[in-house]
Amino acid sequence: MKEISNLIAYRPDVKVVDATLRDGGLVNNFYFTDEFVKALYLANLRAGVDYMEFGYKASTEMFDEDKFGKWKFSRDEDIRKIVGENATDLKISVMADVGRCEKSDITDRADSPIDMIRVATYVNTIPGAVDLIEDAKSKGYEVCCNIMAISHSLEGELRAALEILGQSPVDVLYIVDSYGAMYPEQIARFADMYTEVAAKYGKKVGIHAHNNQQLAFANTIEAVGDGVDWLDATYASMGRGAGNCAMELLLGFLRNPKYNIYPAIQFVDKYMTQLKEEGVVWGYDLQYLMTGLLNQHPRAAIQFTKEKRSDYTEFYREMVSQE
Amino acid sequence: MKEISNLIAYRPDVKVVDATLRDGGLVNNFYFTDEFVKALYLANLRAGVDYMEFGYKASTEMFDEDKFGKWKFSRDEDIRKIVGENATDLKISVMADVGRCEKSDITDRADSPIDMIRVATYVNTIPGAVDLIEDAKSKGYEVCCNIMAISHSLEGELRAALEILGQSPVDVLYIVDSYGAMYPEQIARFADMYTEVAAKYGKKVGIHAHNNQQLAFANTIEAVGDGVDWLDATYASMGRGAGNCAMELLLGFLRNPKYNIYPAIQFVDKYMTQLKEEGVVWGYDLQYLMTGLLNQHPRAAIQFTKEKRSDYTEFYREMVSQE
Repeated sequence: MKEISNLIAYRPDVKVVDATLRDGGLVNNFYFTDEFVKALYLANLRAGVDYMEFGYKASTEMFDEDKFGKWKFSRDEDIRKIVGENATDLKISVMADVGRCEKSDITDRADSPIDMIRVATYVNTIPGAVDLIEDAKSKGYEVCCNIMAISHSLEGELRAALEILGQSPVDVLYIVDSYGAMYPEQIARFADMYTEVAAKYGKKVGIHAHNNQQLAFANTIEAVGDGVDWLDATYASMGRGAGNCAMELLLGFLRNPKYNIYPAIQFVDKYMTQLKEEGVVWGYDLQYLMTGLLNQHPRAAIQFTKEKRSDYTEFYREMVSQE
Repeated sequence: MKEISNLIAYRPDVKVVDATLRDGGLVNNFYFTDEFVKALYLANLRAGVDYMEFGYKASTEMFDEDKFGKWKFSRDEDIRKIVGENATDLKISVMADVGRCEKSDITDRADSPIDMIRVATYVNTIPGAVDLIEDAKSKGYEVCCNIMAISHSLEGELRAALEILGQSPVDVLYIVDSYGAMYPEQIARFADMYTEVAAKYGKKVGIHAHNNQQLAFANTIEAVGDGVDWLDATYASMGRGAGNCAMELLLGFLRNPKYNIYPAIQFVDKYMTQLKEEGVVWGYDLQYLMTGLLNQHPRAAIQFTKEKRSDYTEFYREMVSQE
């Protein structure tokens, strides 16, 4: 059982990362208005959030700019239009997917409003991740590495990946429950594995959870109780499929007085409710429970949602017969 | 950290209690059709659920029968219309609230389709609870006791209440998070307190969670990992305010092959979706997060919901200014 003093006090090393534009952008193809993004930036500032992730640094050679909003590409000049020189203590991050970005799109940190590059990888693309990490680090950035889909990884391979990343210049190693398949007891085990490697190499550990089984918040607070410091959240849980850990739940839980739930409630009230009214759809529903429970990629559930199907029983039959 | 063998195996002592009619009835004043109740009974049977709670045994002297559906009163003859002689291994329970029921409405178990009486009490009405427990036990029933609103109780008084109940003939002591205010780490502490008393007196421990902070399922699986055997759930989380632990999530988690998620999905698909379409409203929303976070009774949030308000920021201001 965790120490009660830890429940009442707080760990100053904890960092909150707002991933609304990045993971939420997967729901609306990154079409957020500038008004929305500016209001989000101000909400994060007032709520005491530590990092705001603007989106992806996607390759324009691989992705058609006419088919996505600008936060798929997160150019320095577009970020500057929102934050100016960002003379605040809210840091700015973007995500770079191994194999789906160009190193040449990442300028020196000295010339950029971006503070941190978050490299997203699978276990089988770790060398590509290390290449991106070294490049970003050499340009002056803080660097995270998100290892995705670990509920599908072999433990031996995951441990080997963590060892390689431990020896790289990355700052933070992220536990990512891509399929929303994990229970808190499993998160505790991954936290144990990650924090052991992190302690050995002087790294930090983070968590990015999905809400397929209504456990994104529970898994995040399990992790922070296990020594995980970097916590991803999104307003109103906005994110692919069942979405993420809700920022408003997380800020209500954290005890550090620098965090403030009130601006988060205001932002959800005004802006996230509006997105839902405009027909943007995300969040927990039975089809996401099913893919999470079956430890599958949510793509079939996302398709079910897009087609506005509601025949849950038939969907479950389809999922199980594919096993 | 919990033993990994416990995560893969299962504890045969675990019991699942369907509280859909009882806690869900608080949302629609117990107006369920007989078709719904029959389908629920069959779903529970096929899903391997252990107990089905039909509703309250409310006093007709205190409550007007014209203002509630029949499951507010849960008469033996109404239950028999659904289950006949219930020649199944699904047991039947009803809830009796201290101060809001008549002992004379509870017949001998030999003459009733009911197997278990669940006595609901506050810490300050424990003698009334013991009186009901002794009465029900003398009539041959299994008996639970749900101590409500313990997040508002003084620890010393709660321990004294548990000692008194330990010495009573009750079978199961229930942890109840009435306000959805508790985090899993707090559930672990209550589980510790309850299981200690239970071991001393040969009782079992149960949990009834609310979903104000999207933690009803997480708190329930935390508890079962801590030695709590009796688990309340409702289909589609139907219950007062933010609702309860979802049956379909719980059945997906439990490893005992007697449990089966498929009938639960079918029931939610056909019947719970229909209730929602008919305008019955329950479930997680910002107003319930707020009362949960502030450890308050959900009545203001329920009123907010009834009035179809959506000014969450103003509601938060109201709640905080009342503190």
